[in-house]
Amino acid sequence: MRSLIKDLLKFRDERNWSQFHTLRNLIVSLNLEAAELLELTQWKSDEEISRLTEDPRSDEALRDECADILLYLLLIAEKAGFDLTEAAQEKITKNAAKYPISKSYGSSRKYTELGVDN
Amino acid sequence: MRSLIKDLLKFRDERNWSQFHTLRNLIVSLNLEAAELLELTQWKSDEEISRLTEDPRSDEALRDECADILLYLLLIAEKAGFDLTEAAQEKITKNAAKYPISKSYGSSRKYTELGVDN
Amino acid sequence: MRSLIKDLLKFRDERNWSQFHTLRNLIVSLNLEAAELLELTQWKSDEEISRLTEDPRSDEALRDECADILLYLLLIAEKAGFDLTEAAQEKITKNAAKYPISKSYGSSRKYTELGVDN
Amino acid sequence: MRSLIKDLLKFRDERNWSQFHTLRNLIVSLNLEAAELLELTQWKSDEEISRLTEDPRSDEALRDECADILLYLLLIAEKAGFDLTEAAQEKITKNAAKYPISKSYGSSRKYTELGVDN
Repeated sequence: MRSLIKDLLKFRDERNWSQFHTLRNLIVSLNLEAAELLELTQWKSDEEISRLTEDPRSDEALRDECADILLYLLLIAEKAGFDLTEAAQEKITKNAAKYPISKSYGSSRKYTELGVDN
Repeated sequence: MRSLIKDLLKFRDERNWSQFHTLRNLIVSLNLEAAELLELTQWKSDEEISRLTEDPRSDEALRDECADILLYLLLIAEKAGFDLTEAAQEKITKNAAKYPISKSYGSSRKYTELGVDN
Repeated sequence: MRSLIKDLLKFRDERNWSQFHTLRNLIVSLNLEAAELLELTQWKSDEEISRLTEDPRSDEALRDECADILLYLLLIAEKAGFDLTEAAQEKITKNAAKYPISKSYGSSRKYTELGVDN
Repeated sequence: MRSLIKDLLKFRDERNWSQFHTLRNLIVSLNLEAAELLELTQWKSDEEISRLTEDPRSDEALRDECADILLYLLLIAEKAGFDLTEAAQEKITKNAAKYPISKSYGSSRKYTELGVDN
């Protein structure tokens, strides 16, 4: 991860792109990449989507879109000054409090509907 | 990163949520989290957005939304059977070919407008 | 439609909100409303989604989210100076050229994959 | 509007596309069109976005993306069995209750922060 971040910032700085990387621009760009990921599911049945990875071109597209989203996340974290992995680790702890096992086992209900005090 | 993935899958399996985690559902959920990140910029000027991290509540929200997106990315990668960090490393290499320094230095134009053969 | 637009602009101007309604802000807000619409399908099977309208609360939510999106479209069209209904009428004509009946009958392929000259 | 809906349904039925137009597919497609609209603002300053309509190609793209979103809204409304214009009219009334003039004049705060009972 540390080596990935180093390569990413080198890529950015060699192109002098930091000037375009405002928080707003990075967040908008991440949303556009998320939409490209969603587009891979467009007009497809659940069955077809579960077999996306069997087609080499779709499989590569899936990897690439996920990769682009991660790269934007890392640029946002760098700009906002936090450690992404650490934030995710903390979020799992928060989610565990929002979704106690006893109330959420085998249920896809949102925590706001679980009657948990948060 | 490895420890993060381990904790995440433990969180998922303790709740028996793997059944809900089809590729489609994970991709849709990632898009909804991306929109929540975008919402943090709604009605705000560039100036206000650049100061988001100075407000503790907004700063925490920014971290949390980015964390949620990373968690969904990791769940997608696990379901689709690829290594997310590796995919991102490869994507930087691809992007470097799409955006040669000589043509993209200091420019925010898309690679399709750079006259690069891809 | 004309009466709807009139009521909408009256609503906006009574609150002195035109100052917030830059093209960027309206487009971002429309995307957030689109995500709220998408959220109505989260974690649901095709079968459950097709029965959304049978539940009065979900049915109302569906109407409300679609309504919000239309309202933002109208505000964008007003700001950009075009007639939304007219633009849609013209778009149907363009789509008919992109998707000739002979090539697209019963197919969900994108026009870029249909071998149509556009 | 009525003539627009008639033309749209004719366009759909001539291509036998109703089979693909499940609520889920229409909602996902609308979100993808919303992202294409957002893409028109990518990497642009507020100043550049406010001048989008001065460039004929961008102006046409803006109209086209808004048109596509309206067309999907109409297909959703048809599938879900409601009148889109009527829903928007009712939504203005609801919004007026959520945002009383006295509390929201000249303010971009969300209704949940206005201290209005809803």
